[in-house]
Amino acid sequence: MRSGRFQKRLDETMERLNASIAFDRRLYAEDIQGSLAWAQALRGSGFLSKEEAEKICEGLKRIESEIDAGKFEFSTALEDIHMNVEARLTETIGGPGEKLHTGRSRNDQVATDLRLYLKRVSLEIVDQVADLIRATTDTAEREIDVVIPAYTHLQRAQPVLLAHHLMAYAEMLLRDRHRFVWAADQADVSPLGSGACAGNQFGIDREALRDELGFARLTHNSMDGVSDRDFVCDFLHAASLLMVHLSRWSEDLILWSAAEFGFVTLDDAVTTGSSMLPQKKNPDACELVRGKCGRVLGALLGLLTTLKGLPLTYNKDLQEDKEGVFDVVDTLQLVLPVFRAMVQTLKVNRERTDASLRGGFLGAMGLADHLTRSGMSFREAHGVVGRIVREAETRGVQLQDLPLEVYRAIEASLNENLFDALKPESALRDKTVIGGTAPERVREEIARVRELIGED
Amino acid sequence: MRSGRFQKRLDETMERLNASIAFDRRLYAEDIQGSLAWAQALRGSGFLSKEEAEKICEGLKRIESEIDAGKFEFSTALEDIHMNVEARLTETIGGPGEKLHTGRSRNDQVATDLRLYLKRVSLEIVDQVADLIRATTDTAEREIDVVIPAYTHLQRAQPVLLAHHLMAYAEMLLRDRHRFVWAADQADVSPLGSGACAGNQFGIDREALRDELGFARLTHNSMDGVSDRDFVCDFLHAASLLMVHLSRWSEDLILWSAAEFGFVTLDDAVTTGSSMLPQKKNPDACELVRGKCGRVLGALLGLLTTLKGLPLTYNKDLQEDKEGVFDVVDTLQLVLPVFRAMVQTLKVNRERTDASLRGGFLGAMGLADHLTRSGMSFREAHGVVGRIVREAETRGVQLQDLPLEVYRAIEASLNENLFDALKPESALRDKTVIGGTAPERVREEIARVRELIGED
Amino acid sequence: MRSGRFQKRLDETMERLNASIAFDRRLYAEDIQGSLAWAQALRGSGFLSKEEAEKICEGLKRIESEIDAGKFEFSTALEDIHMNVEARLTETIGGPGEKLHTGRSRNDQVATDLRLYLKRVSLEIVDQVADLIRATTDTAEREIDVVIPAYTHLQRAQPVLLAHHLMAYAEMLLRDRHRFVWAADQADVSPLGSGACAGNQFGIDREALRDELGFARLTHNSMDGVSDRDFVCDFLHAASLLMVHLSRWSEDLILWSAAEFGFVTLDDAVTTGSSMLPQKKNPDACELVRGKCGRVLGALLGLLTTLKGLPLTYNKDLQEDKEGVFDVVDTLQLVLPVFRAMVQTLKVNRERTDASLRGGFLGAMGLADHLTRSGMSFREAHGVVGRIVREAETRGVQLQDLPLEVYRAIEASLNENLFDALKPESALRDKTVIGGTAPERVREEIARVRELIGED
Amino acid sequence: MRSGRFQKRLDETMERLNASIAFDRRLYAEDIQGSLAWAQALRGSGFLSKEEAEKICEGLKRIESEIDAGKFEFSTALEDIHMNVEARLTETIGGPGEKLHTGRSRNDQVATDLRLYLKRVSLEIVDQVADLIRATTDTAEREIDVVIPAYTHLQRAQPVLLAHHLMAYAEMLLRDRHRFVWAADQADVSPLGSGACAGNQFGIDREALRDELGFARLTHNSMDGVSDRDFVCDFLHAASLLMVHLSRWSEDLILWSAAEFGFVTLDDAVTTGSSMLPQKKNPDACELVRGKCGRVLGALLGLLTTLKGLPLTYNKDLQEDKEGVFDVVDTLQLVLPVFRAMVQTLKVNRERTDASLRGGFLGAMGLADHLTRSGMSFREAHGVVGRIVREAETRGVQLQDLPLEVYRAIEASLNENLFDALKPESALRDKTVIGGTAPERVREEIARVRELIGED
Repeated sequence: MRSGRFQKRLDETMERLNASIAFDRRLYAEDIQGSLAWAQALRGSGFLSKEEAEKICEGLKRIESEIDAGKFEFSTALEDIHMNVEARLTETIGGPGEKLHTGRSRNDQVATDLRLYLKRVSLEIVDQVADLIRATTDTAEREIDVVIPAYTHLQRAQPVLLAHHLMAYAEMLLRDRHRFVWAADQADVSPLGSGACAGNQFGIDREALRDELGFARLTHNSMDGVSDRDFVCDFLHAASLLMVHLSRWSEDLILWSAAEFGFVTLDDAVTTGSSMLPQKKNPDACELVRGKCGRVLGALLGLLTTLKGLPLTYNKDLQEDKEGVFDVVDTLQLVLPVFRAMVQTLKVNRERTDASLRGGFLGAMGLADHLTRSGMSFREAHGVVGRIVREAETRGVQLQDLPLEVYRAIEASLNENLFDALKPESALRDKTVIGGTAPERVREEIARVRELIGED
Repeated sequence: MRSGRFQKRLDETMERLNASIAFDRRLYAEDIQGSLAWAQALRGSGFLSKEEAEKICEGLKRIESEIDAGKFEFSTALEDIHMNVEARLTETIGGPGEKLHTGRSRNDQVATDLRLYLKRVSLEIVDQVADLIRATTDTAEREIDVVIPAYTHLQRAQPVLLAHHLMAYAEMLLRDRHRFVWAADQADVSPLGSGACAGNQFGIDREALRDELGFARLTHNSMDGVSDRDFVCDFLHAASLLMVHLSRWSEDLILWSAAEFGFVTLDDAVTTGSSMLPQKKNPDACELVRGKCGRVLGALLGLLTTLKGLPLTYNKDLQEDKEGVFDVVDTLQLVLPVFRAMVQTLKVNRERTDASLRGGFLGAMGLADHLTRSGMSFREAHGVVGRIVREAETRGVQLQDLPLEVYRAIEASLNENLFDALKPESALRDKTVIGGTAPERVREEIARVRELIGED
Repeated sequence: MRSGRFQKRLDETMERLNASIAFDRRLYAEDIQGSLAWAQALRGSGFLSKEEAEKICEGLKRIESEIDAGKFEFSTALEDIHMNVEARLTETIGGPGEKLHTGRSRNDQVATDLRLYLKRVSLEIVDQVADLIRATTDTAEREIDVVIPAYTHLQRAQPVLLAHHLMAYAEMLLRDRHRFVWAADQADVSPLGSGACAGNQFGIDREALRDELGFARLTHNSMDGVSDRDFVCDFLHAASLLMVHLSRWSEDLILWSAAEFGFVTLDDAVTTGSSMLPQKKNPDACELVRGKCGRVLGALLGLLTTLKGLPLTYNKDLQEDKEGVFDVVDTLQLVLPVFRAMVQTLKVNRERTDASLRGGFLGAMGLADHLTRSGMSFREAHGVVGRIVREAETRGVQLQDLPLEVYRAIEASLNENLFDALKPESALRDKTVIGGTAPERVREEIARVRELIGED
Repeated sequence: MRSGRFQKRLDETMERLNASIAFDRRLYAEDIQGSLAWAQALRGSGFLSKEEAEKICEGLKRIESEIDAGKFEFSTALEDIHMNVEARLTETIGGPGEKLHTGRSRNDQVATDLRLYLKRVSLEIVDQVADLIRATTDTAEREIDVVIPAYTHLQRAQPVLLAHHLMAYAEMLLRDRHRFVWAADQADVSPLGSGACAGNQFGIDREALRDELGFARLTHNSMDGVSDRDFVCDFLHAASLLMVHLSRWSEDLILWSAAEFGFVTLDDAVTTGSSMLPQKKNPDACELVRGKCGRVLGALLGLLTTLKGLPLTYNKDLQEDKEGVFDVVDTLQLVLPVFRAMVQTLKVNRERTDASLRGGFLGAMGLADHLTRSGMSFREAHGVVGRIVREAETRGVQLQDLPLEVYRAIEASLNENLFDALKPESALRDKTVIGGTAPERVREEIARVRELIGED
């Protein structure tokens, strides 16, 4: 690139700053795929003879094998994967190699490579998310008769099935799956043939290129084609929400495996010890997921910040899109299998979950419902039960341990039936609406989610 | 809410920290819409008599009129819009008002209100974006014969139609429109009937509620229903990318209206002066758009950060979702009309755009193509033209001013025809691929985009 | 500003987008303070007569009274606080008012106003942080004999004094205080006399201005003077870390007041109820602090994002600095007093804290130390105790309940003394290093922190 | 660590997720330094014999040599640098190695390592920033007689010395230098002796450790000591502002080297070409700096987000602090030397800078000053000059080309002297205040900054 116009070599520190080969080599398969299609297109336009095109294709495939085998020597002086491949091609096949870049630019190439890559990766993540949903429904079904308190404000609120709680995460993951399908679709557009920014000047057949590369649609403006990174932001947004969900779930699991909750024991295979404290068994996986969430959000913000205020068209700032993306992909693909293993091997401690239902005045809502069903207005019932809770708290007992006469002193209409209303079973039984925690509803939802996932 | 259980008033600073009425009053119409539907549902389940339901509905409509008319007194002690409305209802209609909250929670209500609001607002923005696209195609058509340099790295790269440059933004806006449609769809799910977190306990008809409120789908897990804010993040993501696009466009307009470029003059009606420098005419609207982009990104990050690591289900942290959203909505609805006015009234300075085509060695690529078409390999042609550019630069002239013999000294095969290849018209003429800048292509794209928008 | 050069009125939507008076009116006192100093400086340079200067000063003071009294009519058409004040001045005192803006610009003014404001506010926050430290040391002293488990990975790790835990937050707050002192110092530089960007052209006495305004130093480059917002970022960084600390503390308090931990009860005056669940007493203040942290981080990022990539000097993007700052100031000044009240009124439940010490194998480290003291290498001791913990866990008992023969079966050298090593008192007693949790050390730290704060 | 308590091996994906050795190996020198000091402290407390301590020290030094020489085999199963070093130590010296971890934890170690590292790196950056300031003052002095327009809103505002513009960046860099000194000071606190979280139990001499490691102060609370990452945030904040400054400067340089401005030519050694367009010479370094700014801001946000809401004390989320920091350090240390080279080799194109002074009505302010000096009020002068500018614009001429009679038609008091007031020299000459652009002032500032830097 510098041969004609420049009189000096690139400064050595500048060369290091400028080169992207250290990370964009990861796109070599996509880059070669793009070049193969391009060679055919040049052949179609008559810019390459049959022999030249064949030589190029053979050469490119040989280079791919070299890289696969770890035998390719990447050069920082050649800046990026595109020039590394092209230079090696010319080195091995001579003349025809010098023709391959006819009518295209690296701006074209990198947009194409990144779209091929993110489309593929997004669909891989769709599958990994489905695997995690499957593990979730399996564990939900396995533990279908376990009841725990649901929390609002981390205060015990109402009894729910543990399975219901788990299925809340299945719902989030279904949305995540949907969002990665969307991200794949946003990437599924061929920019190839945009040139440096004004469009291809040799009437290349962009439709044939699109078809060859398996893209669904074409970009319709060359300047936008080389400078658009919306699809990367869409991917990072999907990744951010997935990590937010896993981070929330991690928080729940960390709480549940704390001695104070004790609802679950995480498997030895996914927990770690302490270098100092011999008794420790730490939920490091959960903490790392929660921690890595910040990094994924940082990548999204970093890219949006980079894009903001850039004039058209390609600016080198865009080179910064890739490392963040690669790191996010690695993060998701490391975290998802660990999370699945963790959910699958979760051991529930029923004596602890059962015990938890006895505290926290968990029957208060059932009692208020009982009063409401007897015709009292809800606001009045809320006030009555509030006073009963205060009385129980003052006496240091739970609602089920408060004598009937205390109840009646506060609300004369109450009788023995109230104790039935206090039971967790009663609370579960009446939540039969769609999305409610009644056991038969939760079973239906497990079946529904499995069917949705099975449709993949 | 405090009547029964608490023994002390809320601390006054705590009351201010805790209350959301200062901003969530903005949701009053949605809140009342939700309560009207809820009253009907309670009637359907037999919890309200026909008379009670009618009284509640009349009461709610009266409250809506009061708020519309600015006559409603909001109370900080009542915390939020939900309790403000309920308290006023009971104040005006008495007993039946105390029954309205039967079987629902504010967690339910706020999720419903916010979904109704964001669905409506997203679709409004879809329309405003379409308006801006229309203005863009109109200006593109009006200035269809203006040619400017396209830039990469802010260096002149290739000649393009100004209309082509503008249509690059139309492409971005089409994606934005699509993304807000997606955001509206993400919001279009009814959570009502989730209760505090475990589901409704009175077998309320969630389908009828959904239908009444015009939602497309139902949430399927009550714990997710009250704690999900993904749809808010999707909205803020769409808003972030729209602002990034407008910010990039602003950068272009600021450059174009700088004395050094001088391509366009922004209308007096959208530019401002200086308190000190009498000659200034500043593109403040563009700078503000660029500046406000940071704020919208901040809102997205703020919410993702807030959600991350929250255990299920509702936590008060979620109250922080609203102010950011409202601010983003205000920002978009302020910025979009100004941008449209700016694009519509843009005056192009043709002597400046024409002059710009004569510098920056803009014909270099055409010359390389010319050599390539004559059979030279592209890499060789790239090198030859690079040397010619260096020669021209050394002599301080442009390519079209370099004598033929200088060209031939570098590359003997060149002849007079090269000067044709240097012309901007030649460069435009051959970019005929889909997405290219050839005038007929750009006209087609204008027509295509108009048709897409017309389909709304 | 538009009188001479513009031929059209500003578009109405543009006027709303452009105007900052809705929020920068908050700087009126600082703006008037700056104008008073400026009038004196113009008098000093001979640009104003004694009478003119006096008239201006009287006029400005009257305007300040009008604003104080809520009687000033702010105009959007006049854009900002600077022009609102100047226009009113000319309206009330006539001719001399037209001279006040001689040799200064709004770029000058807004930088000056914002510096005066942030210096003042930073020092206010320094005091509020000190108040919170005081409350912390008071509660630490009051509860000096309460022992709780310290947690790593939210697993019980080692016994510590509750006071030691509280004093960890005092340490963070000391750093915060220091950071706000730094932020105040960064703001404490006078830019006045920078003009629009090139410096004052009338030889104004910047030293006298600085002295009059109470600034510590002068800016030394006019272009930097009007475009520098580093001091705002420094303030927002200090605010971000303070909120991160309060957010971490909130997390601890939410956990401690959950039924499962039950270590503390938050006062009724700082907790809230539920609209639906009558038994709830929610730590909303903590959740709001945790939630609002996202918003403060958003403000920091928003501003850094806005600044990044702006060419020199003043660009209207900078107008975006203020709303985020004001919101952060309001947030801190709302949150700090509530937090102080919460810490002061915290009720410790000793039966729960005592109970917590009996579980979680909390004595394991003491046992390992015991072995280490007897000459066993630490790594070996770590392994031995790990096996003992596994045995206890299998048997479902705590370490203190495991019979001596079980211990001796694993490690023959153990004898009755081990039971002393398991006790929390032993663990506390030996942490006598600076920063350790031994009671006398914690008392010393309380005294040390009080002395540091007292020095204010 | 797992030997005693766990019954299963760590899952393989979990092992990869959990291990930090891939990146924390970078801290090996600091880790070994900490262990050397620790061995001495254990010797001081009598936990190691003289021979044991010597063996450990020799062993550690040998390990350091192995790592220096690239001969050390890092193990993922050993998780991190701390366990890798300890395991190798025991492997090579046997028994005494097993005693090294007595009374300390990895929480201790990592906090110590990171503080040693960031203190050192911050001071290195202080020097690199000083180098860049030197290059800036040198170029400013070399080009002391070049005049350019200063811009506000990217519109020409007033003439300034190019040197004045450059020195604005020197001012920012002085603040950056100061901020990194502050960051170094924040890191300069010894946490060693905090144990896992409760403090050292063997009465280790923390003062001696501090002294040995060269730290300035001690942490005063063990729980804070192991969980505090404020000093990392302070470093990232300093880095963010430095990058924001370089990003702003990059924007200026990109503009100045665009064909439209043409003020400067960047050296061949720091510019790059295009794979397609042969004429291109791109300011990639500037664009990369601008782009990398997003990444550094992302690291700051990522960490703040990670910290927010973590309960005390150490949580594994904190492991996420390091990669971001290392990346930021690499970014700064790559960018700073390139920037220095770029500033040093900048070529100024005086015919272009001179030409730029003739347009943009740059003399307008001088004319207004001229009128103000003659006794007209500033507001009136501002209006008069505004009308003159409008007249010139309508006629398509610059102010200096407008005939005197046109001036007098608008303002009768004007005479020939006005043309002197329009000259750039006049505008420069009168900006003599501190921080103004008058040539003698700029020379003084160059001298002042050199003196400040020389004091290092």
